[in-house]
Amino acid sequence: MFKNFKSVDKTAYGRGSFDKLGEILAPHRHEGNKYLIFFVDEYFEGNQAFEARIPMEAGDALEYISVKEEPTTELIDSLRDKYLAEKGMPSGVVGIGGGSVLDVAKAISLMFTNEGSSTLYQGLNLIKKPGLFACGVPTISGTGAEVSMTAVLTGPEKKLGLKCDWTVLDQIVLDPDLIASVPNNQWFYTGMDNYIHCVEAKTGQYKNTFSEAFGDKSLEMCRKVFLELDRKDPLSDEMMMVASYMGGLSLTYSEVGVCHALSYGLSKVLHYHHGIANCIAFNVLKDVYGEYVDEFKFIVNKHNVDIPSNLSANWSDETIDAMVEVAIKLEHMWRHAFGDNWPEVLDRARIKEWYKRM
Amino acid sequence: MFKNFKSVDKTAYGRGSFDKLGEILAPHRHEGNKYLIFFVDEYFEGNQAFEARIPMEAGDALEYISVKEEPTTELIDSLRDKYLAEKGMPSGVVGIGGGSVLDVAKAISLMFTNEGSSTLYQGLNLIKKPGLFACGVPTISGTGAEVSMTAVLTGPEKKLGLKCDWTVLDQIVLDPDLIASVPNNQWFYTGMDNYIHCVEAKTGQYKNTFSEAFGDKSLEMCRKVFLELDRKDPLSDEMMMVASYMGGLSLTYSEVGVCHALSYGLSKVLHYHHGIANCIAFNVLKDVYGEYVDEFKFIVNKHNVDIPSNLSANWSDETIDAMVEVAIKLEHMWRHAFGDNWPEVLDRARIKEWYKRM
Repeated sequence: MFKNFKSVDKTAYGRGSFDKLGEILAPHRHEGNKYLIFFVDEYFEGNQAFEARIPMEAGDALEYISVKEEPTTELIDSLRDKYLAEKGMPSGVVGIGGGSVLDVAKAISLMFTNEGSSTLYQGLNLIKKPGLFACGVPTISGTGAEVSMTAVLTGPEKKLGLKCDWTVLDQIVLDPDLIASVPNNQWFYTGMDNYIHCVEAKTGQYKNTFSEAFGDKSLEMCRKVFLELDRKDPLSDEMMMVASYMGGLSLTYSEVGVCHALSYGLSKVLHYHHGIANCIAFNVLKDVYGEYVDEFKFIVNKHNVDIPSNLSANWSDETIDAMVEVAIKLEHMWRHAFGDNWPEVLDRARIKEWYKRM
Repeated sequence: MFKNFKSVDKTAYGRGSFDKLGEILAPHRHEGNKYLIFFVDEYFEGNQAFEARIPMEAGDALEYISVKEEPTTELIDSLRDKYLAEKGMPSGVVGIGGGSVLDVAKAISLMFTNEGSSTLYQGLNLIKKPGLFACGVPTISGTGAEVSMTAVLTGPEKKLGLKCDWTVLDQIVLDPDLIASVPNNQWFYTGMDNYIHCVEAKTGQYKNTFSEAFGDKSLEMCRKVFLELDRKDPLSDEMMMVASYMGGLSLTYSEVGVCHALSYGLSKVLHYHHGIANCIAFNVLKDVYGEYVDEFKFIVNKHNVDIPSNLSANWSDETIDAMVEVAIKLEHMWRHAFGDNWPEVLDRARIKEWYKRM
């Protein structure tokens, strides 16, 4: 598998680096109508101490992003149209939040320069022009969105990313202090998103030595965070942040697998968030991921986290069938997990069976 | 320590990726006088099978680089002047070889756009303008030059790198097949260069969790290559290449230390190559690097490699003093290794004592 992958152009890592954001953004304020839009997780709305640290200048815009639902093509299109009408072309965008907010920043930076609806560009290499300058500041770690070349969007037809070299952020600021106050459940689900995609990356045909080195180191740090360190230990946030960065890079030369395919169905049809949807799915995948599922359950137990189960009793056949249809279309994931002959071991009945176990 | 580090823009990793080089370079042939210069390690001169794989097109230039001496400011200046006079501004440059050849490509890409001698720019952030497109294809692994922001040059005054964001390569092609035929001693010295700078990175005040994650994983792969795998095992070349990549990144948020300071003296005054100079120095640094030096000696023994020793008996006092003067000027390395109060534990006499042990 030959890939020539694009890296995030510049990376600032370290405690307190968030306070350097103004300095980092300064050289990027000169294009277009000379203003930046800050997309910020609504979790911070009204947190005056935090808001005061966002380096806004006269003319800049701040847009709180609801993360109740994952970002939709409609949200991206309407935000783009609103800003173009009201303030003209920005110089760039900054996302401050979790994977959803980073994906909003990545997607909208592209949609300012590519015409029409973002639904036109869901898929690989459909984008025609580079986007505006885009900076990401994760406030929760585990999604890998800070380094990935995907901005995942839910559209009327499908949940699928805008994916091309230009989707990759231009700048990331990784400040472990920012993830210290993440609520426990969210911290856990998102951290386990990283655990799960590292496992998927290494258990499929596309992995190589590059991918395994990043994924294995990420898993090692994940285990340290979840099984050894106290969450109050500053090293815990530092390791989680670096694990997420490395986990994202492990996917550069590999792919997600069965769990993500099922999880996309849960998110598209039942609106589960990505992190918890992955946990719900991974929890029933012992036949595919064996001892990793045992380890997952051990970690869940240790942290006393609630992974929703017995859900399918309340799902109609139509609901399950709808999720199966979402999942089965994700052929690149099945091909990675089961090889080129995946249709021989995978059919709608098997996918349905997994959903029924949830 | 706040840093906002620049990454290599695009990375292709994998067996056979060298054969994609033509395709990778195609979009970069349009600037200037529309030709590329390939700087190739003289090791490959006359190797027709290899030469045939270099994707040269009409008008391109090929320049074999002698690696008997490490690259000098004079070499860079004279090559730049020659090509400007004979063929005009190139579209970009490609380095195919070890750390020296990659550093030639990095340095000359900057010197095509920055006026005057490269001696003017030895140091941090002295370069005024971005360079031409520069691509690196390592044929030996361990220096970390493929990801570093330094192009080390030996000038009339000093051995010191051109170092700024623009020094970082735009493209790297990491093909493990290319390092399979490296002669054993060279393979060993260069691999141990990686081992040594990972150890230095983690044993000093500038390290952080980001640096340690990369350095520790790199060391783990180094140990696997040198202590477990047969060199003929394809995994050996793959791991060495990824270890070098990660080892280089571990220095992004840390520094080299005592061994590199002494090694620079050996190279500047006695013209030892970087890899072997590091091994000569590390071999006598048990008082600084403790168990890592024991491990180093164990690996040296296992591989039956000759690390030159008893050298100082033939060195005059003037020679040693000259090396001490080179080394003591590398304050950032001493500060990293011994802390801000390094002058309290380090003087010329102590440095001289280390050289006398060699």
